[in-house]
Amino acid sequence: MTITEQITGMAVAAKQASRQMSILSTAIKNRVLAHMADGLQAEKEFIQEENRKDLAAGRERGLSAAMLDRLALTDRVIEGMIAGLREVIALPDPVGEVSEMVRRPSGITVGRMRIPLGVIGMIYESRPNVTVDAAALCLKAGNAVFLRGGSEAIHSNLALAQVLQKALLREGVDQAAVQVVPVTDREAVNALLQLEEYLDLIIPRGGESLIRFVAQNSRVPVLKHYKGVCHVFVDASGRPEMAVEIVMNGKVQRPGVCNALETLLVHRDQAPVFLPMVADVLLGAGVELRGCPDTCRLVPAAKAAAPTDYGNEFLDLILAVKVVGGLDEAMEHIVRYGSQHTEVIVTEDYSHAQRFLREVDASAVMVNASTRFSDGGQFGLGAEIGISTSKLHAYGPMGLKELTARKFIVYGEGQVRA
Amino acid sequence: MTITEQITGMAVAAKQASRQMSILSTAIKNRVLAHMADGLQAEKEFIQEENRKDLAAGRERGLSAAMLDRLALTDRVIEGMIAGLREVIALPDPVGEVSEMVRRPSGITVGRMRIPLGVIGMIYESRPNVTVDAAALCLKAGNAVFLRGGSEAIHSNLALAQVLQKALLREGVDQAAVQVVPVTDREAVNALLQLEEYLDLIIPRGGESLIRFVAQNSRVPVLKHYKGVCHVFVDASGRPEMAVEIVMNGKVQRPGVCNALETLLVHRDQAPVFLPMVADVLLGAGVELRGCPDTCRLVPAAKAAAPTDYGNEFLDLILAVKVVGGLDEAMEHIVRYGSQHTEVIVTEDYSHAQRFLREVDASAVMVNASTRFSDGGQFGLGAEIGISTSKLHAYGPMGLKELTARKFIVYGEGQVRA
Repeated sequence: MTITEQITGMAVAAKQASRQMSILSTAIKNRVLAHMADGLQAEKEFIQEENRKDLAAGRERGLSAAMLDRLALTDRVIEGMIAGLREVIALPDPVGEVSEMVRRPSGITVGRMRIPLGVIGMIYESRPNVTVDAAALCLKAGNAVFLRGGSEAIHSNLALAQVLQKALLREGVDQAAVQVVPVTDREAVNALLQLEEYLDLIIPRGGESLIRFVAQNSRVPVLKHYKGVCHVFVDASGRPEMAVEIVMNGKVQRPGVCNALETLLVHRDQAPVFLPMVADVLLGAGVELRGCPDTCRLVPAAKAAAPTDYGNEFLDLILAVKVVGGLDEAMEHIVRYGSQHTEVIVTEDYSHAQRFLREVDASAVMVNASTRFSDGGQFGLGAEIGISTSKLHAYGPMGLKELTARKFIVYGEGQVRA
Repeated sequence: MTITEQITGMAVAAKQASRQMSILSTAIKNRVLAHMADGLQAEKEFIQEENRKDLAAGRERGLSAAMLDRLALTDRVIEGMIAGLREVIALPDPVGEVSEMVRRPSGITVGRMRIPLGVIGMIYESRPNVTVDAAALCLKAGNAVFLRGGSEAIHSNLALAQVLQKALLREGVDQAAVQVVPVTDREAVNALLQLEEYLDLIIPRGGESLIRFVAQNSRVPVLKHYKGVCHVFVDASGRPEMAVEIVMNGKVQRPGVCNALETLLVHRDQAPVFLPMVADVLLGAGVELRGCPDTCRLVPAAKAAAPTDYGNEFLDLILAVKVVGGLDEAMEHIVRYGSQHTEVIVTEDYSHAQRFLREVDASAVMVNASTRFSDGGQFGLGAEIGISTSKLHAYGPMGLKELTARKFIVYGEGQVRA
């Protein structure tokens, strides 16, 4: 059997399982999730034993300490997965929701019913907890899920899949509803990306190169974001103290994530007072500043920014800074260098706030708040399966609803079309 | 300049124009649409002159009478386009709608604002009225549109584009917001399908082979349906007279469209009385019946169905018929042969109605109504840009809202993340 045949066989089974999944009651889905949580607790030692094989192999292959850290299924990580499962149990089931029901002039009653997407493929790297988190969300939304983690985590992922499948079995649910691809060749990913007949959506999570590979080679629809190059624009009327807090929070609180701040834009009239003030705090927190000539004049400790610093996702304690002439120049900069992730204006000017909200094309646009709020949990979606920075189907953080679709339903009384 | 360079240049201009389009007021968009309607009226003779070139070329190339008929811009067709424009003016503007605004525990206020998708590519065959209908809907939803009609209609499409662009110009809108691709080589389509950087969505309309070509070669997201293989299942409790009307309407009223009925499924207990009764009326209307052995026994005039008759989109006065053991067998048949377009049950059984609505995976699922209602206008969406039979972004008829997305907006008061 070739890898393509093996992957196709698994996908056919997933599609078949997705039919059962789509009509499961909320009670059964929640019981499965609870069994999963219990199973992770009960089989912790087995999981960690398998995880140690990955860690040993990783050390041998010379993975970085950061990579090994992300790979490790410590007690704390397993507790996190269990807590995540309990959170998903508590979320409302999106499936079956009927909305927009109206009587039409023809006499038929038309509405929309929320339904699962079908089979969702996750392609991800290193962190084995994605296996559990993604499976839980897909399952709660009534989907089957097809998981393809990285080769470095294969033992961990297969062990977790075993625990998850046992939980399905206990409620009589087809175990093909949650499958981990056991083949870690790149060929397996390629095969998976061609299965448009069986997969309804692919969500890649990981480095930009993985995501670009998936997006460029997939015949299955893909929801993804490449990177988060988030800006804060401090307008002339923005309150300096508020702006300092928002900039610090965006840059320093967790610099390695996609909703961290990467570039600060400052209104020319605000710059002379604000820039030295914010630089003081940023430099104190160990942030390297890379500024335009105006910035460097006002903040002697700033380095001169290279052209590539704008639009760069540093994911580190580095901030690009630029003085701009006003709102229009700030928005032009964002069009040119932004990644449609999260953009913030700090202003007290009502019209500027409204224009920024309306005109900036990003999945999240904010007035007087930290970029770090751009997150499914913070936005009230519950847990998050990913973020989309393209507009089709979902734009921004994706929760349970984004793992569903809506069909039209019609209640008639024998109507025919005239 | 190569074709790829030419198409790319046009797409870059469309992307640029889409920024202006996205913030146009409803009043300006409606004025542009009104100018378009006026322009079609004023330039009718020019349009028909250009159309005659296409018709002459089509006759020379031996196009069928049906093809030439679809190509002709008669007075009636032009009046239809004008009426269509007036209808789009009357539709509410979806852009800017803010919904789901909530205060979060952090104190930020989060909601969603409806925004245009950006640049929409239409790839279509023969009917030049699509040029006007699609442009109007895309424009009203704040998008730029890139139109690629067939070579057989190139003179007509370019003439229409000229009229549409004049209307944009009168309101100071970038004419690149509505462009017809002047190159009719297949290479132009190929080039267009690669422009993921500039196009946000492609909607193909035409024969199945065109649509499959687009879906298989596009790197831009595609919304499409291949075909409509719609079923009516007459349950044991379905009222025979109602069922006859629904079957007749589905099959006979307009057999050449995608929401026409193609296969009739009849409950075993209903068959002995119902099948002869419905056959009488269908045969009287000139419908050819192709039935399973049970059907042929009850209706001697029916031909024996070949296996390929099930799942076939006849688009003609032909109906496949099958007797089934009950609801489950009917739903199994639909899973196997349906095209996720429109499925109907005729029943008086409450539980069966609810199960059919919930369990059948199709973009429109109906109880006691004709398949012919599956249409944007009938469903209350206003005019329709197409139908989607895959679930991502849109499922079923697509109206103005399906040409938009939603971004998150946040009103803060200086909040930062803890």
